[in-house]
Amino acid sequence: MVSLSDPAVQSYILYSAILALKVLVMAFLTARQRYAKNVFANEEDAKSSKGKVKLDDPDVERVRRAHLNDLENIPAFWILGALYLTTSPEAAWAALLFRTYTVSRIIHTIVYAVKPLPQPARAIAFMIPVVVKWYMGIAIVSNYISAL
Amino acid sequence: MVSLSDPAVQSYILYSAILALKVLVMAFLTARQRYAKNVFANEEDAKSSKGKVKLDDPDVERVRRAHLNDLENIPAFWILGALYLTTSPEAAWAALLFRTYTVSRIIHTIVYAVKPLPQPARAIAFMIPVVVKWYMGIAIVSNYISAL
Amino acid sequence: MVSLSDPAVQSYILYSAILALKVLVMAFLTARQRYAKNVFANEEDAKSSKGKVKLDDPDVERVRRAHLNDLENIPAFWILGALYLTTSPEAAWAALLFRTYTVSRIIHTIVYAVKPLPQPARAIAFMIPVVVKWYMGIAIVSNYISAL
Repeated sequence: MVSLSDPAVQSYILYSAILALKVLVMAFLTARQRYAKNVFANEEDAKSSKGKVKLDDPDVERVRRAHLNDLENIPAFWILGALYLTTSPEAAWAALLFRTYTVSRIIHTIVYAVKPLPQPARAIAFMIPVVVKWYMGIAIVSNYISAL
Repeated sequence: MVSLSDPAVQSYILYSAILALKVLVMAFLTARQRYAKNVFANEEDAKSSKGKVKLDDPDVERVRRAHLNDLENIPAFWILGALYLTTSPEAAWAALLFRTYTVSRIIHTIVYAVKPLPQPARAIAFMIPVVVKWYMGIAIVSNYISAL
Repeated sequence: MVSLSDPAVQSYILYSAILALKVLVMAFLTARQRYAKNVFANEEDAKSSKGKVKLDDPDVERVRRAHLNDLENIPAFWILGALYLTTSPEAAWAALLFRTYTVSRIIHTIVYAVKPLPQPARAIAFMIPVVVKWYMGIAIVSNYISAL
């Protein structure tokens, strides 16, 4: 029922991998801020870089909040997207959801942590993926509700 | 071996989706506290809502700790539950584990972030899902230990 | 195409379960520090243990940073490893990647939160798994790029 030759499945695989790499980039955005400001979270890091320990630098914390927001959202997409594929969605529609999700999350990171913009830029880039997840989640629950 | 017609698989899909939606609810519980107290984590949010930046409001932080606790626990359930299905568990037993897990995590959120209760309410709601995950994890490792 | 009899799949299942259990251990490392120092994050926990609320104890925060680092890295491995299996990797090579990833992440936890070591111990234990994930992520994206 779920086959690797299904274009919806291929789309899920591609965008899930892109999102995973996007999450990995966050660690480098944080490190870039830490080295730019020379502030670190651990004694041993400050020592090896001749910087200091500081846990409330606003530029570092902004990137860390964007990173945490990814953790709050993207693993939920990975599971909901995979389970949504088992409900036999129309392939072009599923691919559109996955693509919209991924592009919005990338924009979210940019307007949050790379080039901060006034609201509602980030709110919109946050809400579109949330709506995609609720839509898939409700589709899954409706489809399997008899297993309650 | 793992088939969508297996009731254990259907149960896994249903409860995993419910848990994903439950995680998404946490962002709204946090937002509700932020707007009630008018405290925000980012300058641009405070500006658009005429509130102030404050990172240590106790009511907001309580919901955020509950959210983080979900991130520490629920993705591990998603993977362990899926892998546990490959060990051919008895369907009714697997469904009981998934249902118990999900109900306990929902109670955890309620007693942590919605209506805080004295301990050991939260400790019990935390430990039951932990035991379910260790049980499934040990079953998986035992089954595949020859792949070490 | 992805079969439970494939040694690469069995290796993925085994190491993913080991990593999930490793993440669960972090909660107990945090609790151990909390009880040793008698500091807690919530009023109701401090009350039931006759301790005090303190959110900046350095020993507790160190374990919490190690835990958060797991959340930033290990779910991305779970999804990338699973998707990588769909690209028909050579089994022994895939198993080597999964084993290297898992061993490095366990060392990361030890040198971060159990027995802190000077850098670059933790940096190396962090970078090896990051390289494994980028390698798998690029392999997946290359394989499915036509689904963009």
